[in-house]
Amino acid sequence: MIPVSQSDPEKRELSISDLQSHIREMYFEKDAARGVDGTFMWLMEEMGELASALRGNDKENLAEEFADVIAWLATIANVANVDLNAALVAKYGSGCPGCSRLVCECPDSEKP
Amino acid sequence: MIPVSQSDPEKRELSISDLQSHIREMYFEKDAARGVDGTFMWLMEEMGELASALRGNDKENLAEEFADVIAWLATIANVANVDLNAALVAKYGSGCPGCSRLVCECPDSEKP
Repeated sequence: MIPVSQSDPEKRELSISDLQSHIREMYFEKDAARGVDGTFMWLMEEMGELASALRGNDKENLAEEFADVIAWLATIANVANVDLNAALVAKYGSGCPGCSRLVCECPDSEKP
Repeated sequence: MIPVSQSDPEKRELSISDLQSHIREMYFEKDAARGVDGTFMWLMEEMGELASALRGNDKENLAEEFADVIAWLATIANVANVDLNAALVAKYGSGCPGCSRLVCECPDSEKP
């Protein structure tokens, strides 16, 4: 579970691995029973709520919708047995995957 | 930037905050110019690639697609000025937001 700092819990620094294992601990039984397809539908619902929040002015709600989308992604990664930390380090740990620079210099024609 | 362990870079533990600031360093100039709407389109493209990878058998590609979706989410969070670590700790740091348990006990009628 996420290590708790009693002094100021909002300032805890969460690792990607902590997040994924925390979500696993909370939801894996339900997630595994629902499977990837059913879980993806929930993710899409949350993605729609994120889109809506991005158009609105409720900053707290917007933060919550980001948290929900990432939590559902971690859930699907658990069901599909993907290590998110390893995936992110492998793809983005050495700079932009396109140009290998720490500040992306890919031409705008590729990804503006 | 992500701290590099020369011995085994794949075993680096990334924090949510490190990831978000790393993505900011790499892409913020382009991200800010593109704005939220245009960036959301790229996120949706990656989401489709994730859906496709979830149906396939290429485990390495699947991990890459998860990394891409999370990177684009971090990008949008940067443009929208949302702190992902704070958002996740606030919503999921004390257990399931629905039932407050560390292992979710929400009734299946709510979220199976």
